Amino acid sequence: MKNTKHSHRFWMLPAVALLSVMLFGCNGNGNFSSNTDAAQKVYVAPGELDEFYGFMSGGYNGQLGVYGIPSGRHIFTVPVFSQAAVNGYGYSEETKAMLNTTHGFVPWGDAHHPELSQTNGETDGRWIFINENNTPRVARIGLDEFKTQEIIEIPNSAGNHASAFVTPNTEYVSAATRFSIPIDADMSNMDVSIDSYKDTFKGTLSFIKVSEEGKMNIDFQILMPGFDYDLSHAGKGPSDGWAFFTSYNSEQAHTLLEINASKNDKDFIAAINWRKAAEYAKEGKGKMMPGKHVRNYIDHEEGGIAKSETINEVRVLDPRELDGIVYFLPTPKSPHGVDVDPSGQYIIAGGKLSTVIPVHSFAKMIDAIDSEDYEGEVMGIPVLKYDSILHGEVQDPGLGPLHTEFDGKGYAYTTAFISSEVVKWEIESTQVVDRIDTYYSPGHLMIPGGDSQKPDGKYLVALNKITKDRYLPTGPEMFHSAQLIDISGDKMQLLLDFPTEGEPHYAQGIAAEKVMKRQKRFYKLEDNTHPYRATTEAQTRVERDGDEVHVYMTTIRSHFSPDNIEGIKVGDKVYFHVTNLEQDWDVPHGFAIIGANNSELLIMPGETLTLTWEPKKVGVFPFYCTDFCSALHQEMQGYVRVSPENSDIDFKYGTGK
Amino acid sequence: MKNTKHSHRFWMLPAVALLSVMLFGCNGNGNFSSNTDAAQKVYVAPGELDEFYGFMSGGYNGQLGVYGIPSGRHIFTVPVFSQAAVNGYGYSEETKAMLNTTHGFVPWGDAHHPELSQTNGETDGRWIFINENNTPRVARIGLDEFKTQEIIEIPNSAGNHASAFVTPNTEYVSAATRFSIPIDADMSNMDVSIDSYKDTFKGTLSFIKVSEEGKMNIDFQILMPGFDYDLSHAGKGPSDGWAFFTSYNSEQAHTLLEINASKNDKDFIAAINWRKAAEYAKEGKGKMMPGKHVRNYIDHEEGGIAKSETINEVRVLDPRELDGIVYFLPTPKSPHGVDVDPSGQYIIAGGKLSTVIPVHSFAKMIDAIDSEDYEGEVMGIPVLKYDSILHGEVQDPGLGPLHTEFDGKGYAYTTAFISSEVVKWEIESTQVVDRIDTYYSPGHLMIPGGDSQKPDGKYLVALNKITKDRYLPTGPEMFHSAQLIDISGDKMQLLLDFPTEGEPHYAQGIAAEKVMKRQKRFYKLEDNTHPYRATTEAQTRVERDGDEVHVYMTTIRSHFSPDNIEGIKVGDKVYFHVTNLEQDWDVPHGFAIIGANNSELLIMPGETLTLTWEPKKVGVFPFYCTDFCSALHQEMQGYVRVSPENSDIDFKYGTGK
Repeated sequence: MKNTKHSHRFWMLPAVALLSVMLFGCNGNGNFSSNTDAAQKVYVAPGELDEFYGFMSGGYNGQLGVYGIPSGRHIFTVPVFSQAAVNGYGYSEETKAMLNTTHGFVPWGDAHHPELSQTNGETDGRWIFINENNTPRVARIGLDEFKTQEIIEIPNSAGNHASAFVTPNTEYVSAATRFSIPIDADMSNMDVSIDSYKDTFKGTLSFIKVSEEGKMNIDFQILMPGFDYDLSHAGKGPSDGWAFFTSYNSEQAHTLLEINASKNDKDFIAAINWRKAAEYAKEGKGKMMPGKHVRNYIDHEEGGIAKSETINEVRVLDPRELDGIVYFLPTPKSPHGVDVDPSGQYIIAGGKLSTVIPVHSFAKMIDAIDSEDYEGEVMGIPVLKYDSILHGEVQDPGLGPLHTEFDGKGYAYTTAFISSEVVKWEIESTQVVDRIDTYYSPGHLMIPGGDSQKPDGKYLVALNKITKDRYLPTGPEMFHSAQLIDISGDKMQLLLDFPTEGEPHYAQGIAAEKVMKRQKRFYKLEDNTHPYRATTEAQTRVERDGDEVHVYMTTIRSHFSPDNIEGIKVGDKVYFHVTNLEQDWDVPHGFAIIGANNSELLIMPGETLTLTWEPKKVGVFPFYCTDFCSALHQEMQGYVRVSPENSDIDFKYGTGK
Repeated sequence: MKNTKHSHRFWMLPAVALLSVMLFGCNGNGNFSSNTDAAQKVYVAPGELDEFYGFMSGGYNGQLGVYGIPSGRHIFTVPVFSQAAVNGYGYSEETKAMLNTTHGFVPWGDAHHPELSQTNGETDGRWIFINENNTPRVARIGLDEFKTQEIIEIPNSAGNHASAFVTPNTEYVSAATRFSIPIDADMSNMDVSIDSYKDTFKGTLSFIKVSEEGKMNIDFQILMPGFDYDLSHAGKGPSDGWAFFTSYNSEQAHTLLEINASKNDKDFIAAINWRKAAEYAKEGKGKMMPGKHVRNYIDHEEGGIAKSETINEVRVLDPRELDGIVYFLPTPKSPHGVDVDPSGQYIIAGGKLSTVIPVHSFAKMIDAIDSEDYEGEVMGIPVLKYDSILHGEVQDPGLGPLHTEFDGKGYAYTTAFISSEVVKWEIESTQVVDRIDTYYSPGHLMIPGGDSQKPDGKYLVALNKITKDRYLPTGPEMFHSAQLIDISGDKMQLLLDFPTEGEPHYAQGIAAEKVMKRQKRFYKLEDNTHPYRATTEAQTRVERDGDEVHVYMTTIRSHFSPDNIEGIKVGDKVYFHVTNLEQDWDVPHGFAIIGANNSELLIMPGETLTLTWEPKKVGVFPFYCTDFCSALHQEMQGYVRVSPENSDIDFKYGTGK
């Protein structure tokens, strides 16, 4: 951070800038001095730290990427929805259950929208939520340990795209079905023809309640017409208590949607009065419907082991029966993003095929509702009049406007996918004031705090969908690309291209200090509650229970205890419960065994993790530490002897004879 | 690249440097002007490309990371030894077989040492090899497509650490058992007590022959004493035809090695006359021994589908029976790395517990062999005299010297793990000429071409084992850290800290142009040989064969064909064979189906990939494109109806009615 300040002081002095231009001129495209300026702005010198955390969804890699801003450095990946061989997530006994669903164990997920928890409309650094678009789920990641702590499945849903956006005090996290599916009262008739779409397919919007401790449960769902539901954002300030969801395919097509779902001139934003819906739910209104779903959570009271519970029902509110919870805002055309400005007064939609950006006024919306100024209704949902609720339209917003974030100084920034640019416009006047090319085809964009009530309007990150020639080529497959733009001045300035893993659909940013103060650096051994822990070498042992063998093992620089084990037989199921006895920052040990059809374990100081092995062959199999832990790391090894199934060999184990 | 040149011109001018110091002074640690200089040197402006590819092993993530140098940007990860949900590697039907071993399907690997193929001792950009340390394997990655094309298992081996280093014309790739294991003549007695180590445990060194097309097979193994074998490098120039392997644990301890394997004052480098051994092998000498191992390869003639073959035997050469193939070079103390300088005259070892760096002379070694100047023998292997073969010892090399690379200008650079520094020394004089702190505890280091005959001595990357405070904290678990050092001048200059995924043990670098000229950007549809391809929409169809259903599907912006499928039943095994019809750079499509317990597919233009699904529930399940491919990507979806097992429903499929 210090360096950034220096560079500002330095380069903002016109004399020096002038001198450099005088001495060396500009290069062909006139960006010499801006390049040297940009270099300084993104350089975080060795020993210095980035100013912001950037959290990026991994998209089809299913994880959460952590980047430093402004350096663009990829500093970590949190495993969330996909197995991660790197540390055994989804392979170790402690983590497998995190990937349970009603479809069984699912090794992969499609992560889209990370969203930081908020207090009073401001990011607070406690948690970050992220949705899974395929097997519909929402995860909560604790920023104390950068670990996935809970995953909840969304029933009556297929695809969960309009998620995981929070209300201003993290009362709720949003979810919604992206694809409508057959839904009826008792979920008994799911084997329907696809042609019956308009009659039998419905959508649902889901509101996940978050407790003080972060525990998630689905408080209620709202039944919706059979459209596709795309994105959402909660209201704030005057619009707190409301949430907004875009829909497309109001044509209710079920094949070739690129044509058949692009016919209507306007689709809808669904405005949800979630506070009223929550009251209905509290009063027991709506009805309990079949809605089997799984909740997986880390049980901190039992050693940090993931557990699963199944919930069979869910409360469903039907707008045909309950008034005042849903209104439709007509919005051109196949809207994608929906964003609420920091003041909470304006609701801004992207429109993939729209030539303008519509800015709806929350106050006008309330007036229209109060005066029942409707143009019709769909499935019991009043449709407001476009002209009655419009604050204004941004003209010439670029082609394919998708998403908008805010700088907290009265400006909005919208990505234009087709024309590959970010367009800056003034919210009140809806006038475009600046635009900058991005390379290529930006989807979402991110300003730290940019969807909260307190944006930190210094940097903007464009999340581009096309990479092509931005980096050294890597064959047909490439990482996606982000671009860092300085928005601290009147004119946007492109600073840096940086690659991103998977496909970051959306991102969140937060000042580093808000997260750093919460950080755990290791787990205290005295707090270890794992049922198979060994917190001293004296407790290490091997126990047989029928064909199950439990090895209570410890690691400390640079040996395992025990490191010689005999008495294992072909056909046994061996559980290696490995406790890392280190009590210092950044001294993980790894555990891998040659011949196991499994991943490794990467065990943090004070932690216990378990690897199972079902040996199939007779022999002596080495195990070793996979993380270079000391000068004598290579010596950190041991052996397990596996004897034939009918062998009468006794247990023998120990270290250091 | 252009920018780097500019910045050099600019910052090397003393007048400007002087001015900036005059105007703003230095910061506390005197590195202000060096910081601004460093910022310019590592900045690759938007639109420019990095100068070098850096290939880093992922260590315990099992993959190969690709980084741009000097920017330090992580531009790609090639899946190699671990399942990768990001693109379905190890989950799709085409790639599953790549992870087959004699232990079955292994989802994870521990990748250590990438090594570029060489021609005439120079990196040639055709392939990069990398070893797997756990289930012993070597992989070959094609740099035309940045894909793993072949993986071969190493029999009679446990851990494969001293690998995958190449000979100067890529005749061979090295491998070796890190952990000795029970080995006897017919491999019949593997159930032995660990205590019998000194009698029954042996090591093997393996030489993998590489054909012109890259096909790997194990030409021969050499039986060795029951030590641990650690690292290797081939000779070059005068020493071409030889290879050198470090060993430790010449004490033959089997428990608490950190103490018990640290007793001998010297262990050994094994010098292997591989050309002579290859002649023996060609003559049919040695003996064929049981040595079951699996070779997995992409069958380019059948659609790029991975296939496995099992080989049952391997030729083993025993130094007790065959003269002149192995000599032991005594080397202090618990040596780790072994590196041969670009001239091929000197063999340099790290010594984890050594206070000097020994530099062996190849010429002296040959003289000592010719005159049989031995101090003894171990398992038929002559032990040379340390003093007879020594060129010199580097004094004060830092604590815990591990690995050495070269700049091609007569200097060597050695990492010191314990004292956290890189030490530069002159090879001829063995005098230390410079040293620089690294943060913290470097293992390997990398100079592009730095272990070949033609190093590109501009940058050095230190691969550090401890991260601690180098980046914003991410809880107990952190990425590892690399540091980029400018070695173009007399004094080393630290430029940049950059994070690395997994644990990069070793790395290779190569000038970008050598690789770029080989790059495929997409696969030609006309060359698609996949048996289940559909290269036009007219060829798409659904076929049933008993309980197996084959869906021949295509993708093109922005629809699937077919996108409505009925007639699938619970209990079926459905194969979705998806061909991406695009013929342009960077237009992958993804394929995922809601409810499948599987990953996604990420299908490159012109490619066919297959996802299997065994539906367990009745219902209508959406599928969709996971990679944002166009403005109407969100519309790229379809539905599969799954009916009950006993249903008599007929097939019905299509698009766009």
